[in-house]
Amino acid sequence: MQDTGQLNLDWSAALIGGLADAGVREFVLSPGARSTPLTLAALRHPRLRCTVILDERAAAWFALGRVKADGAPVALVCTSGTAVANWLPAVVEANQAALPLVLLAADRPPELHGWGANQTIAQADLFAGQVRATHAPGAPFPGFAPDWLRQLAARAVADSRWPLPGPVQLNLAFREPLLPAAAHIAFPDAEPLACAAPTAQPDAAAVRVFAAALSTGRGAIVCGEGCAGDADPAEFARAVTELAARLACPILAEPLSGLRFGAHDRTQVCHRHDLWLRDETRAAALRPDWVLRFGAFPVTRMLQRFVAGAATLLVEPHGRWPDPLHRTQQLLRADPLAACRALFGGELVAADAGWLAAFAEAEAAAEGWLHARPQPPEAALFAGLCRALPAGTHFFCGNSLPIRDLAAYSGSGEKAIAFFANRGASGIDGNLATAAGLAASGPTVAVVGDLTAQHDLGSLALAAGRPLAVIVINNGGGGIFDLLPPAALPEFEAGWLTPQRLDFAHTAAAFGLAYRRCDDPAAAIDAAGAALAAGEPRLIEFVVDRAASLALRRAIPPGG
Amino acid sequence: MQDTGQLNLDWSAALIGGLADAGVREFVLSPGARSTPLTLAALRHPRLRCTVILDERAAAWFALGRVKADGAPVALVCTSGTAVANWLPAVVEANQAALPLVLLAADRPPELHGWGANQTIAQADLFAGQVRATHAPGAPFPGFAPDWLRQLAARAVADSRWPLPGPVQLNLAFREPLLPAAAHIAFPDAEPLACAAPTAQPDAAAVRVFAAALSTGRGAIVCGEGCAGDADPAEFARAVTELAARLACPILAEPLSGLRFGAHDRTQVCHRHDLWLRDETRAAALRPDWVLRFGAFPVTRMLQRFVAGAATLLVEPHGRWPDPLHRTQQLLRADPLAACRALFGGELVAADAGWLAAFAEAEAAAEGWLHARPQPPEAALFAGLCRALPAGTHFFCGNSLPIRDLAAYSGSGEKAIAFFANRGASGIDGNLATAAGLAASGPTVAVVGDLTAQHDLGSLALAAGRPLAVIVINNGGGGIFDLLPPAALPEFEAGWLTPQRLDFAHTAAAFGLAYRRCDDPAAAIDAAGAALAAGEPRLIEFVVDRAASLALRRAIPPGG
Repeated sequence: MQDTGQLNLDWSAALIGGLADAGVREFVLSPGARSTPLTLAALRHPRLRCTVILDERAAAWFALGRVKADGAPVALVCTSGTAVANWLPAVVEANQAALPLVLLAADRPPELHGWGANQTIAQADLFAGQVRATHAPGAPFPGFAPDWLRQLAARAVADSRWPLPGPVQLNLAFREPLLPAAAHIAFPDAEPLACAAPTAQPDAAAVRVFAAALSTGRGAIVCGEGCAGDADPAEFARAVTELAARLACPILAEPLSGLRFGAHDRTQVCHRHDLWLRDETRAAALRPDWVLRFGAFPVTRMLQRFVAGAATLLVEPHGRWPDPLHRTQQLLRADPLAACRALFGGELVAADAGWLAAFAEAEAAAEGWLHARPQPPEAALFAGLCRALPAGTHFFCGNSLPIRDLAAYSGSGEKAIAFFANRGASGIDGNLATAAGLAASGPTVAVVGDLTAQHDLGSLALAAGRPLAVIVINNGGGGIFDLLPPAALPEFEAGWLTPQRLDFAHTAAAFGLAYRRCDDPAAAIDAAGAALAAGEPRLIEFVVDRAASLALRRAIPPGG
Repeated sequence: MQDTGQLNLDWSAALIGGLADAGVREFVLSPGARSTPLTLAALRHPRLRCTVILDERAAAWFALGRVKADGAPVALVCTSGTAVANWLPAVVEANQAALPLVLLAADRPPELHGWGANQTIAQADLFAGQVRATHAPGAPFPGFAPDWLRQLAARAVADSRWPLPGPVQLNLAFREPLLPAAAHIAFPDAEPLACAAPTAQPDAAAVRVFAAALSTGRGAIVCGEGCAGDADPAEFARAVTELAARLACPILAEPLSGLRFGAHDRTQVCHRHDLWLRDETRAAALRPDWVLRFGAFPVTRMLQRFVAGAATLLVEPHGRWPDPLHRTQQLLRADPLAACRALFGGELVAADAGWLAAFAEAEAAAEGWLHARPQPPEAALFAGLCRALPAGTHFFCGNSLPIRDLAAYSGSGEKAIAFFANRGASGIDGNLATAAGLAASGPTVAVVGDLTAQHDLGSLALAAGRPLAVIVINNGGGGIFDLLPPAALPEFEAGWLTPQRLDFAHTAAAFGLAYRRCDDPAAAIDAAGAALAAGEPRLIEFVVDRAASLALRRAIPPGG
């Protein structure tokens, strides 16, 4: 008689072993019964690092943080039912941000589907439209070929990486008994399938046409998140700054571009444009003939407006169309590094010297203005953090107001700081869990608003034992709405600002985290630095007077 | 020139007004920008009650609690992006548990979809397979017919109620500006569409065949959650107990059946079967020839085994097939109340007197045994709460171990206690939010495990101002896994039990809730009673020694 429990383990060993052989090094597991064979195989695999997280929503956001930090695909395991559904927000983000995830959802076998059985839902297609692939190999059956499952695992990993990275779902049904009387797991020992992603080399003729467009008139390079594509970010930074030097044009770099900080030549890299673009006279004078864009569409309205004023030349390797302005005139399908190198190979005509000088003057003017006038307290927080943090720190920035303040105030420098945010769908959910995922591979500071912190409050449990300083900018609700039309409504506070009543000191104590409340930016920066130096977690509440900060924001003059 | 902001408001007024006219009385709103026209219309509608909840996942589970308490469909509003994705767990539950929800997801217009625009995801089909219907009427356009949107709203409400209640999604795109300079909303004044759901009357010939089967041999009625269908639960309770009297058969009633407590005749209602069915000799002696089932398939393994021993006669009104044993021999498609009444109308032959007496004897034996031997502390908690709670209290029970302990220990009584649990997919997610939704319509006690509480920790924010006593049974992790095969593994604690380190006293303080730690059941029951009497929220941590409780559970003898 067939031992169903042993069959479940053999099946899981083939799959989990196949994932490990294909390059998955990390599993994030949530507790549950139906996933028992998968969980045991992952825990017993000699080369896998497993993290157990109670809330599947947090588990998936944490996995995204791991992927952001390390690049390799991360696998998730959970039990059947709504557990799987809790993954969706991070699955959407992984889809949008092109991050590889392998989702192993335990399921009940077909004979229980649609018959009112416990914890049994239609889950095989739950992520349809959000995943690169879905496989439902059915329940384990006697005589199955382990090679099939090992190649299925390798294929899932490969599909999560190329041509467009993203999530892949394996829906895995198991029959009872889930375990044999004595649980013994043997991982198949076989050569893994070798499958490397190619590099997208640009079409030579397209490069010549592109180079000609770049050699006409005055232009600017705009770099957003993911601008390096799959290339090494430092190598891309050297290449794109060299391209800018050849064209004598500025690079307007968003914080998530990775170009504001690092050892590359930053002479032509602008980082104050969100300030000086408010000066309409200056913005008009610096209106480019073309914009060469790498990476995501800009975050801030100011830079969006700058881009809107010119024809867009876009380099995009993955088959996406990141231009909601529909202004792209030439689209070069290529790896960004390969594109830069191909452009060097041809003729390029530089802009006149006055063009670049005007941008340098704008940057200097904004810099001077920052020192001459009172700024909202967030300015000193972001500027000071970026100055104070040791090289190699992960800087996770919350969405909504923080990411925009980071864009305005990060500054620039030679040391390496890696900036991260969840900009795939730009939600305020899952931010703390993602930051905890980053902290699992190194010291991390996370700066988020109070609503963002509360939205993902349970994920503070993931800070324990990790070098994670969470700075909550507490301005009493959704401060970004102050800058939007609902601010004028009598229903503003109830429906949009939505101030909460959470006590962050007790919150920190609930999760066993050290806590510090700060009214001035320097204290918050010190507290974060001390936590990271000690390799410990800390919750830092940075209290901001929303009305005062808003008044200072509104006073940011156009003549910066 | 068309005022896009005013168009957005006119469009939203027609939809929101239409929902109100169709019977929606409650909206649960989450803050965001793109949903601004919908939020404003809901807040300004004179007959709608609006609750604002930050976390969309909690908002949707809260809405389910409102639906459970009041029956009427509840509408949800959120902004575009991952906000929508956070609804999924509760949408799955609403689908499985057949609860009406109307999901109003704000979206960005088509020209931004697929072009890398901020917070723009493929969300129109995000719930495909989980919803009764999806409508995406596109962005507001000049000259639209308000009657169309009012009927679309009425249709969404009707489809959320019949033929199978569940969630319906309206995906609603808006262009900027989202608001006009001066926000004025006029709700169309028109006769609402009248659309009442029919009652499923059973086929007369099928009733005769069914009655004949019930008149053969010895049988039992088994009632699970939702056994009353769309009928009034008290009226169904009278009808089904009368049917049992005519057949001289027992009713084995699960707590969620609504039959354990109430003014109906409880003479033939069993509520101790989860204890006496452990006695295999007794279980064999009480093995029925047929089981007549109303409502969901039983929760506990003991009752499942009882049902498995006989042919099933099933009454199900909604087109579902709630029988994972595949033992149904006759399926009567009918409203349960109508079915009972139709069965009265024909010939019915009662079982011999000894049959019913044997069940009464089993109940008495279990009762005596409960008093004679030490019980796990959870037994006294559940029994004592059910004794102590005032009539009319909502009793929300967490999944996993609590719902099984409730089944064993609730007792029975004449006063009305309404029991609730999320048994559609039986997840440990969203339990506190659902309980808060129940508390919005009346005093509610919620009993959940520590992992369940922590999974939905942020929803403690919803307790403020509501008569909600949350009793957290803290036994240091997932106690249910002690009863499952992984308990024998060396990896048990890391992968399944997963004890957490949350301090519940500080947690309560973080959310401004009064807190009480109790080591004995009586203190926890008193604290809950005091909170409800005061109409206030309270977090009560009931600390259980897991090992001691487990030893007592294992000692539950078969000869009960």
